[in-house]
Amino acid sequence: MINQVFLDNAPLEQTKQNYLNKLADAGALCPKAEPVAVSAAVGRITDTAVRARISSPHYHASAMDGFAVRACDTFQASEATPLRLKLGIDAVVVDTGDPLPVGFDAVIRIEDVSFPAEELIEITLGAVPWQHVRVMGEDLVATEMVLPANHKIRPFDLGALFTAGLTEISVRAKPKVAILPTGTELVEPGTEPLERGDIIEFNSRMLGAMVEEIGGEAVRFPIVTDDYHLLKRTIAKAAAETDFVIVNAGSSAGREDFTAKVIGELGQVFAHGVAIKPGKPVILGMIEDKPVIGLPGYPGSAALTFELFAVPVLEAMLGTTKASEQVTATLTRKLVSPLGVDEFVRVKLGQVGERLMATPLARGAGLVTTLVQADGVIQVCRQSEGFHAGHPVNVELLRPLREILRTIVVIGSHDQALDILGDVLHSVHPNYYLSSAHVGSLGGLLALRRGEAHLAGIHLLDEQTGEYNLAYLAKLLPGIPVKLINLSYRSQGLMVRAGNPKCIRDLRDLTRPDLQFINRQAGSGTRLLLDQKLKQEGLNPDRIQGYAREEFTHMAVAVAVASGAADCGLGVLSAARALGLEFIPVAEERYDLCILQEYLNQPHVQALLAVLESAAFKQRVLALGGYDLRDCGRTMN
Amino acid sequence: MINQVFLDNAPLEQTKQNYLNKLADAGALCPKAEPVAVSAAVGRITDTAVRARISSPHYHASAMDGFAVRACDTFQASEATPLRLKLGIDAVVVDTGDPLPVGFDAVIRIEDVSFPAEELIEITLGAVPWQHVRVMGEDLVATEMVLPANHKIRPFDLGALFTAGLTEISVRAKPKVAILPTGTELVEPGTEPLERGDIIEFNSRMLGAMVEEIGGEAVRFPIVTDDYHLLKRTIAKAAAETDFVIVNAGSSAGREDFTAKVIGELGQVFAHGVAIKPGKPVILGMIEDKPVIGLPGYPGSAALTFELFAVPVLEAMLGTTKASEQVTATLTRKLVSPLGVDEFVRVKLGQVGERLMATPLARGAGLVTTLVQADGVIQVCRQSEGFHAGHPVNVELLRPLREILRTIVVIGSHDQALDILGDVLHSVHPNYYLSSAHVGSLGGLLALRRGEAHLAGIHLLDEQTGEYNLAYLAKLLPGIPVKLINLSYRSQGLMVRAGNPKCIRDLRDLTRPDLQFINRQAGSGTRLLLDQKLKQEGLNPDRIQGYAREEFTHMAVAVAVASGAADCGLGVLSAARALGLEFIPVAEERYDLCILQEYLNQPHVQALLAVLESAAFKQRVLALGGYDLRDCGRTMN
Repeated sequence: MINQVFLDNAPLEQTKQNYLNKLADAGALCPKAEPVAVSAAVGRITDTAVRARISSPHYHASAMDGFAVRACDTFQASEATPLRLKLGIDAVVVDTGDPLPVGFDAVIRIEDVSFPAEELIEITLGAVPWQHVRVMGEDLVATEMVLPANHKIRPFDLGALFTAGLTEISVRAKPKVAILPTGTELVEPGTEPLERGDIIEFNSRMLGAMVEEIGGEAVRFPIVTDDYHLLKRTIAKAAAETDFVIVNAGSSAGREDFTAKVIGELGQVFAHGVAIKPGKPVILGMIEDKPVIGLPGYPGSAALTFELFAVPVLEAMLGTTKASEQVTATLTRKLVSPLGVDEFVRVKLGQVGERLMATPLARGAGLVTTLVQADGVIQVCRQSEGFHAGHPVNVELLRPLREILRTIVVIGSHDQALDILGDVLHSVHPNYYLSSAHVGSLGGLLALRRGEAHLAGIHLLDEQTGEYNLAYLAKLLPGIPVKLINLSYRSQGLMVRAGNPKCIRDLRDLTRPDLQFINRQAGSGTRLLLDQKLKQEGLNPDRIQGYAREEFTHMAVAVAVASGAADCGLGVLSAARALGLEFIPVAEERYDLCILQEYLNQPHVQALLAVLESAAFKQRVLALGGYDLRDCGRTMN
Repeated sequence: MINQVFLDNAPLEQTKQNYLNKLADAGALCPKAEPVAVSAAVGRITDTAVRARISSPHYHASAMDGFAVRACDTFQASEATPLRLKLGIDAVVVDTGDPLPVGFDAVIRIEDVSFPAEELIEITLGAVPWQHVRVMGEDLVATEMVLPANHKIRPFDLGALFTAGLTEISVRAKPKVAILPTGTELVEPGTEPLERGDIIEFNSRMLGAMVEEIGGEAVRFPIVTDDYHLLKRTIAKAAAETDFVIVNAGSSAGREDFTAKVIGELGQVFAHGVAIKPGKPVILGMIEDKPVIGLPGYPGSAALTFELFAVPVLEAMLGTTKASEQVTATLTRKLVSPLGVDEFVRVKLGQVGERLMATPLARGAGLVTTLVQADGVIQVCRQSEGFHAGHPVNVELLRPLREILRTIVVIGSHDQALDILGDVLHSVHPNYYLSSAHVGSLGGLLALRRGEAHLAGIHLLDEQTGEYNLAYLAKLLPGIPVKLINLSYRSQGLMVRAGNPKCIRDLRDLTRPDLQFINRQAGSGTRLLLDQKLKQEGLNPDRIQGYAREEFTHMAVAVAVASGAADCGLGVLSAARALGLEFIPVAEERYDLCILQEYLNQPHVQALLAVLESAAFKQRVLALGGYDLRDCGRTMN
């Protein structure tokens, strides 16, 4: 019953090059051409150099509104000896673009002429031959090259093509790419109700959009269940009907992963398994002369292996290469990576001071939000065990650098009001972005100290003074000028499942043996609050079951409670409300934004502070519940 | 009969801001929303923040192929005390993505298990709670923000949207933009035969593609002839049916330019004429609450005024801003610009050594090739009379910088083989580009000396030695290491109209009083060749009519002859052939590429040299006629 398959672990470049060579040898990568109407050519790629069929202008044209003349007639005109020309005989009215009458070779502008009498004009300056004339072929000469081969057509190019007398040109045919989602667990988006185990099928849509972005035509096949014969029939059909087949997934070695076997039976498998992370189980094959790639099922793995293996195939078929943009950035955190595999880690980027900072995102291949949030990708090669914080790394950009440079980097405690702040900022200023990383309040202050963020979101209660935040600034950022601006006061409390099935009343219940608690990470403001309250109540943390299990956000704690993984946790009201949990208030706490003084006058930071005072922002935060904005926007230090 | 209208000459920023304010006050710029299926959402812009409808995963899911267990059952397992678990009772087979059975809280990977007997598995290491489990909400929690407002949707975002349980989202409606080409002289592309004075209508297609690139929907109206009532009816219809009307052209003050009058009658004209170059006669108006803009007819003017005035209107309707990318570059030539107008000059860019060099392109507003060739735009503000060569200028990029950095900059003499060289280079290496500016051979060497180009194309005959190029290197580039590589030998000769109607036999005919000659510019190799040959023949240039009229390329000379503007000129066989001219050979000359040694080992230059030796390149050059490639690729110094 258990079918253990050992996948190859071949190095990346060699496997990829070998695959592309095999495909090229089989003639599977030759660009094909097709004619396309110029009017529909934007975004297409020229197959050969395009040459002008006619010249532009195709006749000597007036370049001004005025009068065509024979220059030799006008030489003697001067202020002292004005010259009169008879309309229709010595001078002919022309508008811009009109052809010069035969024998005429210059144009005098209407502004340079007076009208002494009907049918007469007077000039005081002779015309130079060909003045204000667009001579035939000035712009383009027939047979001249209008566009080179391999050129992606832009709106401006349409003008040149039409004016060169072309209405149809030869472009690269769009490779037809079949995308086959496979797996009995997959359901179409919109399926109701969702059962446990149902997985909404979205990879095929994501991959299809990636295919079209590169210039291919995506042909999405219906979901194929885990039925060996059905899969085989479908792959054979796809290979017959399209230029390139992508099977997703069934590429690993689980019970129902037939893909490699089927491709091997219908054609050849050149590689099954590559030493990369994520995406190891990728299958590289060919049926007849059609490339067939099996991508792993996790979205992170599917996206990466598509980029690494399917994009070069598509680009070869289109005869193009997408030039990737690389930058050097400084790692904000230590990044550990296994030896022996090329690991690809997505990062968030932000310009803080002179440095571009890269923060690694969560690495689960199943996380699709990581794909959404990423600004770039780092490759940690197989000879490396990773990098220390502060290490310079090479980042391939996934987002234009100019956007990244306009991003405010917030590191610190998570708060939903911060998401709303970012959303409103970007709505009001489409050029500005807010990026927030959640490492807790102390982590945020440490990031500020290392110059890795513009500002930190903090809610740090000082045990001695009972005051928020100020004591920590003195301790952690001595001598570093910062401005502390209040975001909100918010309720922290115990979140429990609806109906409070375990009858939890207050913190003292946490030590009950029948309760499973879920904690926040050390360094978070919520954890400090909990520890202080436990101390006040004389409760021993060692007696709380689950005290050692840490989550990084209020939402993660709420999820743990909602899903039954824990019975209660400490968090904000908005998180409890979002998941329909009950909320037992414990304390009100102050949440401030700590901004490095040196960035205070930057336009995007100023814009952020203005948003903080706006009604649009405040209304949305108050609607969350559990927030008091009495000091919102006020300087606290 | 002559209707002189004086256009406004208001400054740019003030006019533009005033117009946008008027439109905003009238409510003409409010973004509208519409629902769209997630599957069709790529490229659309979110109207509001998008929140997750369900969590992802929406159940506790196995993250591996293996066995679900209860962690507490497994604590005692070790190498010394292996633990057996009964399948179906203590351990349940799960594949990646399968739901954990109720009560189970960890997964053991298939690799970490042995199979001692049917229905039994054995483990030697206990499971930690929640290991290899994707807990509910790990990726996205219901109600969490998936995408902010004002976000342009990318392929990756589809994954997050579908997995968050969404199948439809609210996006900005595409503004419908009417584009009305006007002018009796306009004919549709493909019209045969073209008469003198016919202008192929292409602006509407170019502008339409620009509208769609920004995210609008272009509605192209049929050509409107210069009929006042027809124009009025059509503009009224367009304003009623769409969100934004663009009339092109009829915006200047020529005889048949009714547009401003019509817009004024149907609504209001806020400005007619702005102090910019090109594009001065632009009309900014409104009919009801619909923006109506009259763009000038020249493609360069239409494109610029569209960018300056129509793009901000469209962006306001979509709630976005296209962040423009600016770089600083060094001017390669003096740029003179009139005081009192903001002039926009398109440039070619190239990285040579450490510097980015900007070469102004020809400034005729009628030139559509300038739009095609431009890498960027310089704004010379109205207080400035321009810049000297070597001056740093701010350039707004029209092409990605990474492409520009991979461009080989050739300045010098024009040759069609050079176009083919660039075309083949880019076909073989889609990442590399060749940009050539035609300033003649001497100009090319001077550009090399100033560090403005990687290489120059030259054919410079030395009078003393009768040799090509070497003497000039010693004279003009003393001490600068260069490599001289032959491109071709080519025939130079007199080009005359088919049938040689003026019976020209050789250079001695040039002094005939009935002949009009057309010359090449001083510093060009062809000019040097002519002057040397005239000297040999004892002919006085002063006696040649047209000797003073200079063109910058072989093709321009050929056009002058073909169109009857001149009777003959000196040039290469390929130019003559291209326009069906007769060719009277005068000499064979050597055309070399002079490459600065310091760039010789750059990969794009090496790629270029490899192309020079390729059969693909040679075949295409030989097909032009008049070329001898016996030394092509050979080092000549």
